[in-house]
Amino acid sequence: MTQEVQNGGAANGVSKAVTFSAVKPQLFVEAPKASDAVQFYKTAFGAEEVSRANHPKRKAEQELPLVLSAELKLGSSAILISDLVDDSSAPVKTGGNGCVICLETEDVKAAISKAVNAGAVSEDELTEGEGACCGGLAGKVKDPYGFVWQICTPAKKCADVEA
Amino acid sequence: MTQEVQNGGAANGVSKAVTFSAVKPQLFVEAPKASDAVQFYKTAFGAEEVSRANHPKRKAEQELPLVLSAELKLGSSAILISDLVDDSSAPVKTGGNGCVICLETEDVKAAISKAVNAGAVSEDELTEGEGACCGGLAGKVKDPYGFVWQICTPAKKCADVEA
Repeated sequence: MTQEVQNGGAANGVSKAVTFSAVKPQLFVEAPKASDAVQFYKTAFGAEEVSRANHPKRKAEQELPLVLSAELKLGSSAILISDLVDDSSAPVKTGGNGCVICLETEDVKAAISKAVNAGAVSEDELTEGEGACCGGLAGKVKDPYGFVWQICTPAKKCADVEA
Repeated sequence: MTQEVQNGGAANGVSKAVTFSAVKPQLFVEAPKASDAVQFYKTAFGAEEVSRANHPKRKAEQELPLVLSAELKLGSSAILISDLVDDSSAPVKTGGNGCVICLETEDVKAAISKAVNAGAVSEDELTEGEGACCGGLAGKVKDPYGFVWQICTPAKKCADVEA
């Protein structure tokens, strides 16, 4: 929570520039409503579904797989819709705030280090292959204002599932 | 909350296409911490402040004006940071969810109508001149999944305040 940060976080050896290729709000909805929500955003905002990844695990009582992440195109921007599940496979636990901002970058580890040096708190371990946005490397940090940022490899590196 | 929606919401006379020129997550932080948050995002993520609009009203006990909306550039995307205040001048009351998605469009009224036809609930009156994003026309809707969407005139039509 320190505000005594150095510009760029260079003090702790993280001096290289980190660039973000995309910023995508990720909206978590109560499971299993993500599919309904995707349909709603298509109708309400004219969104187009670009890709969808389902949860790898499906419980016996589930009729349909839960949505790990569905990417919708809205104008030239993208939003992500996910089912919020409370077991350990949940990609992001938001603690009541259903919105996470997903930042895509080629250098996930440097981006997380820089954010942590600035005062953010790293949450959980880095994951690879089951990230919220794609199959790339993903980690997340909570900033001093309570927002969670998912930092991950750009989605273009992942196999998209056409809707 | 109806899910019996028609594609495009044409059933109620809103048949024209609505396009969004930008999608910007708007993060509300406990007042008066928005200025600190802007500085944090500059340090943590290398964000650049593009513009800032302060609240027109300042209470006697406030040392600094509250931030109505500060726009930060993050890669090729934008995020908005705002002080959340609980008086009637608050642009968006988020009810505990500090994140609103701001959609910019040339046709605010048609976009809101389409969203409402699809099942969203319009919140408050349309405002002009004191919108959260800029001085343009702005309205907001809450979708059936609890998310608030601010729909407003593109920010480029407003006079930007350089940081």
